[in-house]
Amino acid sequence: MSTTRLEAFSDGVIAIIITIMVLELRVPHDAELASLRPLLPVAGSYVLSFVYLGIYWNNHHHMLHVTKRVSGGVLWANLHLLFWLSLVPFVTAWMGENHFAPVPTAAYGVVLLLAAAAYTLLQHSIISIEGRDSLLAAAVGRDRKGRLSLVLYVIAIPAALFWPWIAGALYTGVAILWLVPDRRIERVVSST
Amino acid sequence: MSTTRLEAFSDGVIAIIITIMVLELRVPHDAELASLRPLLPVAGSYVLSFVYLGIYWNNHHHMLHVTKRVSGGVLWANLHLLFWLSLVPFVTAWMGENHFAPVPTAAYGVVLLLAAAAYTLLQHSIISIEGRDSLLAAAVGRDRKGRLSLVLYVIAIPAALFWPWIAGALYTGVAILWLVPDRRIERVVSST
Amino acid sequence: MSTTRLEAFSDGVIAIIITIMVLELRVPHDAELASLRPLLPVAGSYVLSFVYLGIYWNNHHHMLHVTKRVSGGVLWANLHLLFWLSLVPFVTAWMGENHFAPVPTAAYGVVLLLAAAAYTLLQHSIISIEGRDSLLAAAVGRDRKGRLSLVLYVIAIPAALFWPWIAGALYTGVAILWLVPDRRIERVVSST
Amino acid sequence: MSTTRLEAFSDGVIAIIITIMVLELRVPHDAELASLRPLLPVAGSYVLSFVYLGIYWNNHHHMLHVTKRVSGGVLWANLHLLFWLSLVPFVTAWMGENHFAPVPTAAYGVVLLLAAAAYTLLQHSIISIEGRDSLLAAAVGRDRKGRLSLVLYVIAIPAALFWPWIAGALYTGVAILWLVPDRRIERVVSST
Repeated sequence: MSTTRLEAFSDGVIAIIITIMVLELRVPHDAELASLRPLLPVAGSYVLSFVYLGIYWNNHHHMLHVTKRVSGGVLWANLHLLFWLSLVPFVTAWMGENHFAPVPTAAYGVVLLLAAAAYTLLQHSIISIEGRDSLLAAAVGRDRKGRLSLVLYVIAIPAALFWPWIAGALYTGVAILWLVPDRRIERVVSST
Repeated sequence: MSTTRLEAFSDGVIAIIITIMVLELRVPHDAELASLRPLLPVAGSYVLSFVYLGIYWNNHHHMLHVTKRVSGGVLWANLHLLFWLSLVPFVTAWMGENHFAPVPTAAYGVVLLLAAAAYTLLQHSIISIEGRDSLLAAAVGRDRKGRLSLVLYVIAIPAALFWPWIAGALYTGVAILWLVPDRRIERVVSST
Repeated sequence: MSTTRLEAFSDGVIAIIITIMVLELRVPHDAELASLRPLLPVAGSYVLSFVYLGIYWNNHHHMLHVTKRVSGGVLWANLHLLFWLSLVPFVTAWMGENHFAPVPTAAYGVVLLLAAAAYTLLQHSIISIEGRDSLLAAAVGRDRKGRLSLVLYVIAIPAALFWPWIAGALYTGVAILWLVPDRRIERVVSST
Repeated sequence: MSTTRLEAFSDGVIAIIITIMVLELRVPHDAELASLRPLLPVAGSYVLSFVYLGIYWNNHHHMLHVTKRVSGGVLWANLHLLFWLSLVPFVTAWMGENHFAPVPTAAYGVVLLLAAAAYTLLQHSIISIEGRDSLLAAAVGRDRKGRLSLVLYVIAIPAALFWPWIAGALYTGVAILWLVPDRRIERVVSST
């Protein structure tokens, strides 16, 4: 099976998730500049989640670019990733509307952690088809960036319950870590 | 006519249906963990429907993978399937928000039954074009899994009115039955 | 310019329009069968609009299937059609929630009329590029079905103000007229 | 990397943005023609934003039509553009619901300005890959239309705070300026 439709479906779901998040930016009823101020935390969490979804789309794009075949298992691993990503708008709004309160900030981290775990799983299931000597396996290597992210989320979640801003800084840090698209794949591709 | 645009349109509609369902998970106004508890039944029905829509997308993907031509009739059979799938978010929310009460749980089954019947119809209309000796006809065979699902829905709907949890178990059972993607098609494809 | 991306964008917009309409089916707060009754007119107008959007998607699909090149003008004629289609959910909900009251039913007809006119315009702008001797020009011919639809809408709109159900019958009649996909194009294609 | 998936994702996001804007046209609760009147400013701002998003989609389409390769940097420049476009529904609704009041009208201009700047940035990042002697570089030339638009936005934003209708006229003027799709690219393409 080719990857075309898997990519198209994932593009569709990620495009919708990224766009419906903005619906949580409720239009203020009056026309003053000051009425934007209470929206600032919501806008901040929106920017963070937009960047995260952009990273996922970007890395997903790169990963499938070097994938030739998919199986039924890969389709489900992909749907599993999309499931956790679909919860991002919910936790984004909850965290933003409560001004980065402890519990919602931890919940945001839980969804990020599960999405990252689902991405790792998807990567494993593709590599198990493509083979250990495939382009993707070479590009991913020991996946230090992926492992580090998981560790940072695991630190951030309990931290959120006491010092939510540390969690926020860790989430931002992981985003910056990934903001640079997965050069490993570009490097491996261009070296062939 | 090729199947490209039919797939693209179906991917779009299913992607949107799967994603707008999450909008029914209303963001709680306070920041306590306890405020997630009333959302649990809604989240449960969301997971079930997400899996169902994933199954439909997956099987649709497999079916069209072995389809070469579509006619006007197939386009309408496909729209008919998308119509019933478009009602899934409505019954999902109704069932979830009412904690799996009898009538909404039965209504959920009715929509699942009609979607399954529409899928069977679509399958028939494609086979009638592709021919009795086509890959798809070989893969579907006597469609025992499809028939069994219809029977289980027909049992679950009246059961929901008295013991909604039996209906819930049956819906979950059918989902598990299909969770494994349609290996028949993969088998037939790989044997050619 | 090829038609690929025009089709993809139109598919996306029509898929979203068709799906967000269902959001107007507000989930009832109680779990009785009787609480579905007030939704019946909304559901009825949803079915009618779903069929209309299905017809537009279907005919759009057929039309672009025999189109080879598009120009900037065609892109705008297409966006113009999508604009009127984007108002369908609004008038659908207005008509349904007011139980087919005169003014909303007439407004529904106005949007249908303008969408039909936009479709005719798009068809003209494609034919003006493809040429008078193109497949599309041959398939459309004197476009009697298109003209008849416009006439029926023009009759239905004022009729809606006095006898809304006559307008409803006319809208349904036009839908049935088109429910059969544009065989003219399939005929012309298969005869080449 | 090819541009296919970048186009598909952008099409998806722009299609969703353009369609969810119409959700701000709240369905009136009564069935009188007069109840549409308060919606007129919202409808007006919707038309303006629909045209703007159509322009962006159109120009994006033309630009990527002459683009052969994309890099990770281009993917992010594109996401950056989509971010500002995703805020269009928010400022459209705010401006429309407040009848083109000074602050929301200025905010609308700020989002248009940042989207235009993001588009220019995306154009630069593509040209830096395609090369100074590429089709795109030739088509864009000194980008007088792009620069003029930025200047007009910069004038319109402060003007909005005192005479919002002047800003509205300037926004409309820029839209008309671009309504004609980027003939430069069509010209350059057809001359090769």
